[in-house]
Amino acid sequence: MPKSSAIILSFILLSTFSFGICHFLPAQDRSPSAPSISQQGRQYRIQHAVTILKELDRLLSIPNVASDLTNIKRNADMLKEMLERRGIRTQLLQLENAPPAVFGELLSPGALRTVALYAHYDGQPVDPSLWKSNPWKPVLRDRPLEKGGHEISLDSLNSPLEGEWRLYARSASDDKAPIMALLAALDALRAGNIPLSVNLKLFFEGEEEAGSPNLAGLFEKYKDLLRADAWLLCDGPVHQSRRMQLYFGARGITELELTVYGPSRGLHSGHYGNWAPNPISLLADLLSSMRDGEGKIRIPHFLDDVRPLTDSEHRALLEIPAVEGQLRNDLGLAWNEGGQEALAERILHPAINFRGIQSGHVGDKTTNSIPSEAIASIDFRLVPDQTPDRVRSLVEEHIRREGFFIVHETPTTETRRAHPKVIKLAWGPGYPAARTSMDLPLSRALIRVVEQSTGEPVVKMPSLGGSVPMYLFIEQLKTPVIGFPIVNHDNNQHASDENLRLQNLWDGIEVFASVLALLGKVWP
Amino acid sequence: MPKSSAIILSFILLSTFSFGICHFLPAQDRSPSAPSISQQGRQYRIQHAVTILKELDRLLSIPNVASDLTNIKRNADMLKEMLERRGIRTQLLQLENAPPAVFGELLSPGALRTVALYAHYDGQPVDPSLWKSNPWKPVLRDRPLEKGGHEISLDSLNSPLEGEWRLYARSASDDKAPIMALLAALDALRAGNIPLSVNLKLFFEGEEEAGSPNLAGLFEKYKDLLRADAWLLCDGPVHQSRRMQLYFGARGITELELTVYGPSRGLHSGHYGNWAPNPISLLADLLSSMRDGEGKIRIPHFLDDVRPLTDSEHRALLEIPAVEGQLRNDLGLAWNEGGQEALAERILHPAINFRGIQSGHVGDKTTNSIPSEAIASIDFRLVPDQTPDRVRSLVEEHIRREGFFIVHETPTTETRRAHPKVIKLAWGPGYPAARTSMDLPLSRALIRVVEQSTGEPVVKMPSLGGSVPMYLFIEQLKTPVIGFPIVNHDNNQHASDENLRLQNLWDGIEVFASVLALLGKVWP
Repeated sequence: MPKSSAIILSFILLSTFSFGICHFLPAQDRSPSAPSISQQGRQYRIQHAVTILKELDRLLSIPNVASDLTNIKRNADMLKEMLERRGIRTQLLQLENAPPAVFGELLSPGALRTVALYAHYDGQPVDPSLWKSNPWKPVLRDRPLEKGGHEISLDSLNSPLEGEWRLYARSASDDKAPIMALLAALDALRAGNIPLSVNLKLFFEGEEEAGSPNLAGLFEKYKDLLRADAWLLCDGPVHQSRRMQLYFGARGITELELTVYGPSRGLHSGHYGNWAPNPISLLADLLSSMRDGEGKIRIPHFLDDVRPLTDSEHRALLEIPAVEGQLRNDLGLAWNEGGQEALAERILHPAINFRGIQSGHVGDKTTNSIPSEAIASIDFRLVPDQTPDRVRSLVEEHIRREGFFIVHETPTTETRRAHPKVIKLAWGPGYPAARTSMDLPLSRALIRVVEQSTGEPVVKMPSLGGSVPMYLFIEQLKTPVIGFPIVNHDNNQHASDENLRLQNLWDGIEVFASVLALLGKVWP
Repeated sequence: MPKSSAIILSFILLSTFSFGICHFLPAQDRSPSAPSISQQGRQYRIQHAVTILKELDRLLSIPNVASDLTNIKRNADMLKEMLERRGIRTQLLQLENAPPAVFGELLSPGALRTVALYAHYDGQPVDPSLWKSNPWKPVLRDRPLEKGGHEISLDSLNSPLEGEWRLYARSASDDKAPIMALLAALDALRAGNIPLSVNLKLFFEGEEEAGSPNLAGLFEKYKDLLRADAWLLCDGPVHQSRRMQLYFGARGITELELTVYGPSRGLHSGHYGNWAPNPISLLADLLSSMRDGEGKIRIPHFLDDVRPLTDSEHRALLEIPAVEGQLRNDLGLAWNEGGQEALAERILHPAINFRGIQSGHVGDKTTNSIPSEAIASIDFRLVPDQTPDRVRSLVEEHIRREGFFIVHETPTTETRRAHPKVIKLAWGPGYPAARTSMDLPLSRALIRVVEQSTGEPVVKMPSLGGSVPMYLFIEQLKTPVIGFPIVNHDNNQHASDENLRLQNLWDGIEVFASVLALLGKVWP
């Protein structure tokens, strides 16, 4: 069922329900249903749509690249003020020379569980020349730019605001939208006198897009403060079908740049072609030995550590809406790697992704030269129970077996004279995958509340294909973690013209309100 | 024997010879020997070294990229004036919108044969930012730049000019040096009253570095004017051992750019890695299927058309000085393709050279993306009797067998949706190899004169590794053609800081003088 029909249907079914019946009562008391709370969220956001959007607009207007500490601090201060205005006890968690994390806590009398919500307020760096408008001057448009969207002035807005409108700005989706949705959900519950069913902790990171270099340090330093019964990560997009999704894991990652060497200077490909080692040829052979064009990994023992799927994960896969046909069509593809296997299942396998390759010249810069080196950039996406260390060791063993002499710094001429097929390997830091069981009481309770709130099955993803450091929550904070995203999948996250589809903000307010009001009640 | 020792020895042996004994006598008459003519060349160039160098300096000061028609015309005009000043009947051979070729003719009374000399006066395009000095403001240095050469003012030069000095300018070697050496050789013969043994034709092309697009047209239009008994190509460098070499052929060439397609836009390598086709992976597999890292060609039937070597060619290979150890050392290599086979033999095989590859990003520009396309640039070096057409057809058959759908224009989205593994192939024009028999009377006579002139064995290369359109001389002008280069092998030809080692200019004057004075006498 398309989302819009579902909303209309829910509205018809629920419009006779009452709401707003509990005011500061303990969580266990008289319980509104998920639909009625969802309805309360909707009523609230319809009435206050302009106010909500303008508050988000102000938040989006502060540049938020993690390395820009001055502006990052302005973001943190504004978030602190936004939280405190809502009665949330707030503090900035700080490590030296790092963007602060914004921490907030809201106790609910009688609540037995504590849920912590994670989002990040920093954004990817921007190349303004690629943007249609200033990344930090939000622009509202009546449809996506690629469909000819026209600007709607933010100054003279009147309700209703259409769900298909898009707000363009860096972090409009990733991740300031869920922060705004969450605060609006709290406002909606308060307006309806609906208490929280859980104690709430908020943790907004300021350098996720810089690779979260201090997240482990913050977790270590503020371990006690961050204690919770569950962490929900409000990062990432909803399913490509536009259905709400929960993700119970994420792939890990480790990154590698390989440099293969030929002659120490470029050589005429006529005079030396067939004699001088060709680094592109050596690199092509090596890459080809690591995985084939169908995605099959050829490195021995690479799959040995992979943990099998559980029955629940298998079942969840079967229920995930098929998106492959539409995706192939959108992407100009007649095929995909892995044949009939669904995308959601493919990303439960480890992947070797060739991200870049560079040597010599192509196009009108082509020269008749054998290049002196060839470089490839790879990421390895890991699944439980692979580790970056084990992957590194398997990959290096494989490369040695392929006849290469491995160095980790740029080799000297002497090294190159001494060893055929010298290769430099530069490994990035990397981290392992994480997976939370779908069978936990928490997992079942969350699925139930979200499904009751939206009136349709939630997409249960055993894992994201992408990598977020969920393992830190599990390993360091010893807490189960589930991904709970709300923004549109077609949001140009990380790229130019990032945007938020307003309906996703509205839906986020409703579902956050339901979860905050009900999760503690159905969680055995 | 090192070249310098050879020169000293020759000088001692020959210094008692008389020279300059024939003035305007027919070629068959009283005959000076090769050593005496070489000595006449040496005497002349020592006396006139500054004048010769300054004339070359003026020629090198005119920018000479083929597409810069205004300056190309200035080069042609200056050459015409240089030839006419020497009593050579000169004309510019012209096709519409093309750089003119400079043609000159000098008859020698009584000569029975006509020898035509080819060189080109245009140069490779430059990137001035990569040059130490302006490519068209020649700079003399006391040693190569990479050995810390210091500038010597061209304004206040006095003899003697050291042989190891280097003149830096675009085309200092490739090809204005042989033009200057030839004209100075004519001056030396005239000063010594030594007649030419052959009628001489000169043909200086103005767009060799642009791929000689009009050479066939010029040959067609001026077929009668260009009739000769032999063509000598004064393009290319001497042997890496610094010994003079003659090359009796050249590899042909055909060029190919391949573009392999993935998704129509870059996709997150986490969310889609393992599902979206990875164009780098497809390209690596394909390149790997065409040749291996050792240079072995894997395309079926690619070697079927290769003509076996003759006995003379086999013998010549055995006499070529070994350069491989020194080359590997200079190039920081512990190995070369083809194992023990010598460089000179390796280039008698066809080669597949990967010149460039590009997809996505590496280094600090790396992104977590599966790129939407991957491009590789290849040249195929051909040997007799391969043809570009046959190679194209074998390569396309092979690529099809590898599962690709071939297009020759950028594919539409519909094409990409309809066919897995779409590849775009863009073929360059290309031309076949050429080989002149070492057993021709001309070949034997030329070898003899050069060896007598230099006092040491000439390196007889069955073929250049590089490609020059020698086939045009053989196929269109029906004339045997031999490569007769004089410039240093380490001249940075085609790159930045191109340079000429003065000793190569001096040696060129001597050997050209000997050949012009004697070839007609020993050619049966």
